[in-house]
Amino acid sequence: MWDKRGDMVVYGTEPYNAEPPPGALAGQFLTRLDTFYARNHGPIQQIDAAGWRLRVDGLVDRTLELSLEELRRRFPERKVVATLQCAGNRRADLQEFHVIPGEVPWGPGTTSTASWSGVSLADVLAEAGLQVRAAHIAFASTDVSQEADPPQPYGGSIPVAKATSSEVLLAWAMNGQALPAAHGAPLRVVVPGWIGARSVKWLQRVTAQAEPSDNYFQTAYSVLPPEADPHKFGPGDGIILGPVALNCAILRPDKDARLPAGATEVTGYAFAGDDRTVARVDVSPDGGSTWIQAGLDAPESPWTWQHWRATFTLPAGERELIARAWDSTSAVQPESPATVWNPKGYANNSWARVHVTCHP
Amino acid sequence: MWDKRGDMVVYGTEPYNAEPPPGALAGQFLTRLDTFYARNHGPIQQIDAAGWRLRVDGLVDRTLELSLEELRRRFPERKVVATLQCAGNRRADLQEFHVIPGEVPWGPGTTSTASWSGVSLADVLAEAGLQVRAAHIAFASTDVSQEADPPQPYGGSIPVAKATSSEVLLAWAMNGQALPAAHGAPLRVVVPGWIGARSVKWLQRVTAQAEPSDNYFQTAYSVLPPEADPHKFGPGDGIILGPVALNCAILRPDKDARLPAGATEVTGYAFAGDDRTVARVDVSPDGGSTWIQAGLDAPESPWTWQHWRATFTLPAGERELIARAWDSTSAVQPESPATVWNPKGYANNSWARVHVTCHP
Repeated sequence: MWDKRGDMVVYGTEPYNAEPPPGALAGQFLTRLDTFYARNHGPIQQIDAAGWRLRVDGLVDRTLELSLEELRRRFPERKVVATLQCAGNRRADLQEFHVIPGEVPWGPGTTSTASWSGVSLADVLAEAGLQVRAAHIAFASTDVSQEADPPQPYGGSIPVAKATSSEVLLAWAMNGQALPAAHGAPLRVVVPGWIGARSVKWLQRVTAQAEPSDNYFQTAYSVLPPEADPHKFGPGDGIILGPVALNCAILRPDKDARLPAGATEVTGYAFAGDDRTVARVDVSPDGGSTWIQAGLDAPESPWTWQHWRATFTLPAGERELIARAWDSTSAVQPESPATVWNPKGYANNSWARVHVTCHP
Repeated sequence: MWDKRGDMVVYGTEPYNAEPPPGALAGQFLTRLDTFYARNHGPIQQIDAAGWRLRVDGLVDRTLELSLEELRRRFPERKVVATLQCAGNRRADLQEFHVIPGEVPWGPGTTSTASWSGVSLADVLAEAGLQVRAAHIAFASTDVSQEADPPQPYGGSIPVAKATSSEVLLAWAMNGQALPAAHGAPLRVVVPGWIGARSVKWLQRVTAQAEPSDNYFQTAYSVLPPEADPHKFGPGDGIILGPVALNCAILRPDKDARLPAGATEVTGYAFAGDDRTVARVDVSPDGGSTWIQAGLDAPESPWTWQHWRATFTLPAGERELIARAWDSTSAVQPESPATVWNPKGYANNSWARVHVTCHP
């Protein structure tokens, strides 16, 4: 389905929501298109690129209407390698701690990395001429979501300071191939270091405005306090998500794997989000009693994940493997799902834990 | 001593190291000069402002030699309200967990806020003309530290991207008064959102260079892995500290206070460091079994602490009060000193805990 690999974990087909099994991400810096996670709130759009236009409006000096051809001709092509991560990544571990009804039980597979090509949003905004009152840049798509209250096309916004940073792209290609329909063709936003929800697909309109987007999903992507009602919330009720929080995952071995006792390689990714990098990853083979530092890939840029690996000699029996990451400011992940649990199940960045059984 | 209040907790007089008692910071957005913490590695310098010159050199088009009068005349005056926090803040809580020899047992009082006046470092660097190879801006003082190996004047550096941000000042006044000798007169650096160690006092020289400072203290301020030798380290051995990690402290009641049972107000500060703000503070009256959200002051800017407060009805008996902060990206502090303990005792941002006894 949608040219994805056969072993994708598919949570729904309309809207289409799927993540690869964790092992499929292991050791791969760039994620293949057939493996890249898909997170949707509405139907995948099939857009005729020839008739498509991007509208740039709001608090700008010049409203623009741009075809794909005009975007290519009028602005320099930019390439950025960036990891996207769904705010619901690792929600399943929160759901094990306490129920979260009606939300997809994502594992650690809604984190993927591609080389994106397109134009810099900053260049397009400069051409339109941002007015001084423009504080937020809103993105609108066409995919009407029945999950929204009321039903509406998907949208969201980011502050002007981020929108005018050179790494934010309007992208038409990933990994050197034309953007597939499932990933937002003909044009999508890519906001490196921020939750995937702000990288709006099937982009139709970019609006400069004084306030954040009033789209349902702008506020829905919030960490609400534990006692809040996940079906009734407003902009002031929670922490509206933007930059990704420091996180990591164990990709191998699999959760609940049965392994032979002996030398075992544990591998995974870590991702600092925002403009930070991962400085260190600790791994424990025994539920946190002892820790070693994993071998950690150097950051390619602040916008990408870093893979890590550690080898242990595991005795026979049950074990809990744990990983925790430190960022370039020396911040470390919180220990427990109990601390970070929230009613909509976003931003689970507690220590990664995988239970395994080693047989003699 | 050095015009500080009588109840400062003084850990040494040469070099002079002192913090106010936590209660002296409670409820005060700006910290009085007599209350502001003092952290030194060498003798406080008494500099004749008339003969003093600032040298700006290295990878610049024009080497500058500037008197205080020239700084005032040639550049616009800027004012920034900023919190400074020592990287050793709350080290005492790490030392309770595991010994850290030879380091000052700071409480939560090495965090203070002032309104700083001076010129923007960015303006001075623009006048000198930064060359493209300039990646770091180094600061040098005159206070020779015997703690350094080998003994040397205090120094350090920050990356060009931070150094050219408008909030970084070369300051000659705090809270509208001339900078006292104890705080770096005639001119000091103020790097908002970064550990205090980068805000070099008694500034003599600003050097644009391709590499970070090779000053002893640039690398000494690192979070080393737990097994590292705190007396032998190099730039690659730890996480060299820059932006402050998300933190909070309980300022009232005092540690080990004896209180009457009944209504008790708990107050403190939280500080997100870097360019983040504090979005939420949770407080527990019972060692973490239950939590409420504290009343939290709105951020004045990303560069300042935010005070918070919560009221509980405490029964008679022993209690552990806990506070933990969340930043604007939904990152939360780690739970335990065991996680963040490091050989030099820096960046303790585990949950704040205060033990109290309530009598009937």
